[in-house]
Amino acid sequence: MLNEQIIKKLRSIVGKDEVFTSKEDLICYSYDSTWISHLPDAVVAPANTKEIALIVKLANEEKIPIVPRGGGTNLSAGSVPVEGGIVIALHRMNKILEIDTDNLTATVEPGLITAALHKAVEKVGLFYPPDPSSMFMSTLGGNVAENAGGPRGVKYGITRDYVQGLEVVTPTGSIVRCGGKTIKNVSGYDLMRLFTGSEGTLGIITEITVRLLPLPEAKRTLLAVFDSLDDAAKAVSDVIKNRIIPTSLELMDNNAMKLIEAFKPVGLPLDADGVVLIEVDGGADEVGRQIQKVEETCKTCGAREVRVAQDADQAAKLWEGRRSAFGVMAKSAPTVITEDATVPRSKVPDIVRAIQQIAAKYQLNIPILGHTGDGNMHPIILTDERNVEEMKRVELAIDEMFRAALDMGGTLSGEHGIGIVKQKYMQWEFGDDGIALMRAIKKAVDPNNILNPGKMFIRGE
Amino acid sequence: MLNEQIIKKLRSIVGKDEVFTSKEDLICYSYDSTWISHLPDAVVAPANTKEIALIVKLANEEKIPIVPRGGGTNLSAGSVPVEGGIVIALHRMNKILEIDTDNLTATVEPGLITAALHKAVEKVGLFYPPDPSSMFMSTLGGNVAENAGGPRGVKYGITRDYVQGLEVVTPTGSIVRCGGKTIKNVSGYDLMRLFTGSEGTLGIITEITVRLLPLPEAKRTLLAVFDSLDDAAKAVSDVIKNRIIPTSLELMDNNAMKLIEAFKPVGLPLDADGVVLIEVDGGADEVGRQIQKVEETCKTCGAREVRVAQDADQAAKLWEGRRSAFGVMAKSAPTVITEDATVPRSKVPDIVRAIQQIAAKYQLNIPILGHTGDGNMHPIILTDERNVEEMKRVELAIDEMFRAALDMGGTLSGEHGIGIVKQKYMQWEFGDDGIALMRAIKKAVDPNNILNPGKMFIRGE
Repeated sequence: MLNEQIIKKLRSIVGKDEVFTSKEDLICYSYDSTWISHLPDAVVAPANTKEIALIVKLANEEKIPIVPRGGGTNLSAGSVPVEGGIVIALHRMNKILEIDTDNLTATVEPGLITAALHKAVEKVGLFYPPDPSSMFMSTLGGNVAENAGGPRGVKYGITRDYVQGLEVVTPTGSIVRCGGKTIKNVSGYDLMRLFTGSEGTLGIITEITVRLLPLPEAKRTLLAVFDSLDDAAKAVSDVIKNRIIPTSLELMDNNAMKLIEAFKPVGLPLDADGVVLIEVDGGADEVGRQIQKVEETCKTCGAREVRVAQDADQAAKLWEGRRSAFGVMAKSAPTVITEDATVPRSKVPDIVRAIQQIAAKYQLNIPILGHTGDGNMHPIILTDERNVEEMKRVELAIDEMFRAALDMGGTLSGEHGIGIVKQKYMQWEFGDDGIALMRAIKKAVDPNNILNPGKMFIRGE
Repeated sequence: MLNEQIIKKLRSIVGKDEVFTSKEDLICYSYDSTWISHLPDAVVAPANTKEIALIVKLANEEKIPIVPRGGGTNLSAGSVPVEGGIVIALHRMNKILEIDTDNLTATVEPGLITAALHKAVEKVGLFYPPDPSSMFMSTLGGNVAENAGGPRGVKYGITRDYVQGLEVVTPTGSIVRCGGKTIKNVSGYDLMRLFTGSEGTLGIITEITVRLLPLPEAKRTLLAVFDSLDDAAKAVSDVIKNRIIPTSLELMDNNAMKLIEAFKPVGLPLDADGVVLIEVDGGADEVGRQIQKVEETCKTCGAREVRVAQDADQAAKLWEGRRSAFGVMAKSAPTVITEDATVPRSKVPDIVRAIQQIAAKYQLNIPILGHTGDGNMHPIILTDERNVEEMKRVELAIDEMFRAALDMGGTLSGEHGIGIVKQKYMQWEFGDDGIALMRAIKKAVDPNNILNPGKMFIRGE
């Protein structure tokens, strides 16, 4: 609980209508897209960087936890205020400040919705590649804090690859700028990339300059149907081995298709073991040649059918099932846990097999889909958090999945971050020395541990 | 001076033949490509990571400075042991450990020569884009530590964009691994990118996994001749405004051409104010269309002549002058200072004008060339460090150039780093708060300040 004095100070910073303390309001900021929730003590909605710096200074003096919040679409409990304190809601700071068509950059406020940026830059023939599935709700600030990915990551990389400049309020309330409109910049330590993906624990991102690309001239999509998931996984790996880097390369297993068809029939082949959805983009001739080569590769790998979209409508139809997958899953079980263990691309067949074996061992329903072209799997565990016995099996299954991914040279998280839900595995990936280094950096930057405390590392570890 | 006890311990770690203390040997490791030099107390050449960890542990206990060294091609005095101590020479750790054609990665030791990696991966149809001009001497470890760039940065980015995994010995002698063969990885703080470009001050890079691309199918080159440097600079900016991202986009002014023709005649138009050299790569049809569009843009901007290479030989001929530029400059003056102030692309005409005005004001000979497509200018100051009066003017000129670049939204360094030579400008770019943050990180990671001390920040600042 914050005392009346603090609330008064917060009101004097952001205005009395932008500080929320009623239970109804607090509940709205207590959760994200995981099953974890905790009430904050107050929510404030600042209008600009200066107000944020003042709030942080106050919190730092009073040692009050602060959790910055964008769209709340986080999948690792990164935006849940697990130690209470103040949630800084960034929805008022949602402007596009500039689209610079000479330097191919956009400068935006952190509360801007990702899809709104896509729309604005595409209007002038430009392209912002990162496309997290939550892009219609997620914000640019959240994307940077979590280093969000998306299907187009195979070819274009993730948020970090497009962040070119940041303004950040540090845990002591200073305003620091790093990077900018220059493509190249090697001055000093790479604070920009340290803040990117720091999950709100090192600073609050208050302005972002992203790099844009020319909008590709053309794109083509195909869906390949496989009787064996092993063959499908091999096709994923072989397409890239054949030197084609598709824009997106997604895989869905039979289990995932069945759920999609049950809730939103789009004509997926329910008698098949798996399908692979592949999109290429580039110059018009180039994509024609590429899609043909991809088709051949899929057939060589044993695809029994390849559906090549002939126009944008057909392509949209092929994508429809994949795009609806998360919504469908959410309807099909009370608790849906989306993991994102990621492996080197060549290990996709191995990790698919491993996940299936783990699901069988623990008698769990785990449809598999994911941005398989970059090895970023999304096994989706359909469960019910009220079923204590099943949740124990879920936990054991998750442990085994991460162990398997790391043993294959993979990582805990391809795009969702660590937050709360993967803290216990950090030691597996980085060892004690790696974690000690990260903790030392956290302590140096945030001596009072006020920014998003309790995240990324296990407390007192 | 190190006492005999320490030398003995170093010998026991790396073997007696790999510790060097004679003056003749020390001189070889006292300099880099700047005018700054300082003798180390000892040079050791370890064979592997474990030996490096032992050396660093010893140095940390004894508080002896350590400077890691690759090819010594540094342009900011980053590899000069300005506080003495131990130079760790990495030439024995020069192996390619693996080229993984499935995952499109290469894993190498830090002492590997950059060009050797290019050659090895191109043999199997793959492509490592970063191409620092020093690539025949520079090492991958040095490239990562300095975050090296190169002409291909316009389209492909710099070293940081290809580092996918690192093994690092920290200043306390721990061995930490981050990243790996997965394309996506957002686990924990981005230590990998913090180490990249940290100029040897946060850790010693002992193994590197880089991302590779498929080798582009084709490339085309043209040289456009301009009677006005202003028009040339505008062409640079307009090519990209027209949505073409060339592989390289280089500019040379008349001054630079004259020097090249004096020492290595390649037929540059000495009556022109400047030339622009542009290369595009990609699919065969695509590059044909692109080079045509680039030609048109150059003509629209006032190019009096455009030479389009019809084959690889002609392209090599167009590149010859540019590639020989640094060698030529080195012959033409006792002291050559290459700056790399970098501006947003749209400001290229402005910075070119500013540099010319500064050169005139201080009566200095400053040919201009650079990777202009990414705003990364290389004004090259031809001087003589023995001429005290001229060196004063040089210093004032450099001050003004950096002030101008920063005022245009630029940065101190596009690719050469801070080292010693740009320390005094760090405050201009990052302010006191930004520098305090970097210093706090340095102190947290390297509490005894043993790793490359005296670099990046001004001492005691």
